[in-house]
Amino acid sequence: MHMNKKLLQTLIENKDFKQIKNNINNMNIPDVAELIEELDNTYSLLIFRLLNKITAARVFSYISRANQKKFLLLVNEKELKKLTDELFLDDKVDLVEEMPANLVKKILKTSDEKERKLINQFLKYPKDSAGSLMTIEFIDLKKELTAAMSLERIKKLGYNKETIYTSYVITNTRVLEGIIELKDLVLEDSNEKIENIMSKNVIYVNTHDDQEYVASIFKKYDLLSIPVVDNEKRLVGIITIDDIMDVVELENTEDIHRMAAIEPSHTNYLDENIFILAKRRIIWLLVLMISATFTGLILSRYEEALESVVALTFFIPMLMDTGGNAGSQASTLIIRSITLEEIQFKDIFKVILKELGVSSIVGIILAILNFLRIYFIQGYSIKISLIVTMTLMLTVMLAKIVGGILPLIAKKAKLDPAIMASPLVTTIVDTFSLIVYFRIATLILKI
Amino acid sequence: MHMNKKLLQTLIENKDFKQIKNNINNMNIPDVAELIEELDNTYSLLIFRLLNKITAARVFSYISRANQKKFLLLVNEKELKKLTDELFLDDKVDLVEEMPANLVKKILKTSDEKERKLINQFLKYPKDSAGSLMTIEFIDLKKELTAAMSLERIKKLGYNKETIYTSYVITNTRVLEGIIELKDLVLEDSNEKIENIMSKNVIYVNTHDDQEYVASIFKKYDLLSIPVVDNEKRLVGIITIDDIMDVVELENTEDIHRMAAIEPSHTNYLDENIFILAKRRIIWLLVLMISATFTGLILSRYEEALESVVALTFFIPMLMDTGGNAGSQASTLIIRSITLEEIQFKDIFKVILKELGVSSIVGIILAILNFLRIYFIQGYSIKISLIVTMTLMLTVMLAKIVGGILPLIAKKAKLDPAIMASPLVTTIVDTFSLIVYFRIATLILKI
Repeated sequence: MHMNKKLLQTLIENKDFKQIKNNINNMNIPDVAELIEELDNTYSLLIFRLLNKITAARVFSYISRANQKKFLLLVNEKELKKLTDELFLDDKVDLVEEMPANLVKKILKTSDEKERKLINQFLKYPKDSAGSLMTIEFIDLKKELTAAMSLERIKKLGYNKETIYTSYVITNTRVLEGIIELKDLVLEDSNEKIENIMSKNVIYVNTHDDQEYVASIFKKYDLLSIPVVDNEKRLVGIITIDDIMDVVELENTEDIHRMAAIEPSHTNYLDENIFILAKRRIIWLLVLMISATFTGLILSRYEEALESVVALTFFIPMLMDTGGNAGSQASTLIIRSITLEEIQFKDIFKVILKELGVSSIVGIILAILNFLRIYFIQGYSIKISLIVTMTLMLTVMLAKIVGGILPLIAKKAKLDPAIMASPLVTTIVDTFSLIVYFRIATLILKI
Repeated sequence: MHMNKKLLQTLIENKDFKQIKNNINNMNIPDVAELIEELDNTYSLLIFRLLNKITAARVFSYISRANQKKFLLLVNEKELKKLTDELFLDDKVDLVEEMPANLVKKILKTSDEKERKLINQFLKYPKDSAGSLMTIEFIDLKKELTAAMSLERIKKLGYNKETIYTSYVITNTRVLEGIIELKDLVLEDSNEKIENIMSKNVIYVNTHDDQEYVASIFKKYDLLSIPVVDNEKRLVGIITIDDIMDVVELENTEDIHRMAAIEPSHTNYLDENIFILAKRRIIWLLVLMISATFTGLILSRYEEALESVVALTFFIPMLMDTGGNAGSQASTLIIRSITLEEIQFKDIFKVILKELGVSSIVGIILAILNFLRIYFIQGYSIKISLIVTMTLMLTVMLAKIVGGILPLIAKKAKLDPAIMASPLVTTIVDTFSLIVYFRIATLILKI
């Protein structure tokens, strides 16, 4: 399906440029990008120079940031223009945002005045907003046109647009009035006026809407693209589904990082320097130590009990680990369900009931198995065995209920459930399990 | 943008059915579905009966499984046919798979012989395979046609297809030869033969490919749809991006569940019964207790040390919690990077170096802050303070390195990194931190 790297190297060694050129300009863009990234600088530049203008720009937008930078430093001014001329505006803005100053200057030099203005305007949209995600390459129509006239306009504008499947109908002051799908233009009578076939029920977002919200709208309505308007409902751009796919992955990465108590970041792990990686982790490690202070205090309060029955110490790690795991199972399930909008705050009593049921089952099974292990296999006294298993069961039950409700409360308080739940669940469960442990112990052992 | 529920109820009370009908048939399908789900059974059936045939079927495919079931039990046979007739085949197959037997019988009764055969064939594809995800509603063309003739055929076939933006060019034996985008058909000279404008570089998948692989192909090539072929490369269906968006969310949910040591499931939390929820959690809680056995054993080996210096006990939870958190930060970052294909096994030395750097920074900061707290604020002896902080630092370093490399090793061994890493990291870090703690303690305290 795609050209072999070895074959390509043979062709390069044989200086069979015609064959190479013929091959690579007919390959799929992401495959060419992959090939170019695998070759060393000399070869990749050579290959790159054989690509036609449009393919070159598209391949460029597919290679990694690090390689883009290397490339832009290698090429001459004319080639730089060839590259950036055909880039979509949103890709160019991303490039300007992330390249070093000397390269930015070079890139902006290849743009005309009008484009430079647009780039500056784009740079002002907040990161993660619809405005920073949109492209301005779209097809606008007037409602007075016929289907045939619209198709003519699309043909005229068409080739360079990121998507031509949807056209946007606007007034003279650029206010969004309706949308029309290419398929409807093709399927309808060619003399029909746009006005009569467009959909007036337009789903749109504002430039300042958050990208997570935009993604949820895409999912709800199964969209391929969405118009972006300003505060006067004037059409300023569109967002296409390929960018939304990336947003969905990024948001999922953020959620996963937050659940593991790491400050989320969009940078590739291997590209990030160790000081930034350390900074992203240290904050939450420190916060999570708050719980450690509590457990230390509780243990020192029960110093006498610990001195007289050292065996009590042996089960502390097991009790705390199991409580922690049981709690994070519940909180992870609930946090994910909140993200997917399957659970809301009003379901809190259903969640409590469910977790009560689940934790009873899980707690009883774990308690029985542990009793068997501690009493029969390890040979501890019946009293110690009872203390440990009773604590285990209560800890699991509390951990699951607290793990289930805290994310919902965090959400209700407009805090991020993934950030807030984890440290609080740990602190509450750790503290509770130790207090219960020693209460039961002092009661049964009469110490 | 959409009709208010209260307004609708007023209209229902006033029996203004004409107004209701007019309104709901012009609303966006997902909004109608949302409205119907919020109303009680009598009202929702009433509203549903006012929808025209195609809208009714589309609305139906948007409501939740639980409500679909309720609906199918409420409607009469004729209405059931109205509903299921217009469903896409893939949606109908999903319905047959998940509804109770009595309803399945009813649904199959509304299908003709040919469709029943197709449904049975679909049911044989493995769950999570491309075959079970595809739809058979697509446009096939022959390469001898012209652009104009193709557009005619699309017009004729078009209305009921899930996507008409891409047509598939096949031979007389249905072998896939090429694809052509609707936009190219529109933009090209209408007398041009398909043969000359189609792309022969077709990206396709096999019916038995896993849906996760299909999703990765969509992302790599920014596709809106992909053809699915059998082992003879005959075209049997297509997969569209809306279904892939759902796959991406499901796969992310699975990963998140696995990282929290829960057996993944696709069922909504609130819809799942407590025994299944318990089963999904108990297995890993039991596995994770293996580490608890080790820690118990180590602690009992150092019974004497614990007896003579009880204060050593107070810091055990803090050391183990911090080690656990530090390890899961590293393993989560690496697991996610593996999923996103940013890191491979060959990067293992880079990861070790990075984690060594990060953990040194994090370890030193945590150790210093803890020394200040333990020695100056809590007033423990210099020896105890040193033992605890040295152990803390070594634990954090080991946790991060083990957390960083274990997922890569799991991946290399073709095991799921998310499943394997977490219990192993905990076991190794817990065991190691206690051994180090008591080695240092016995050395410094000479006990």
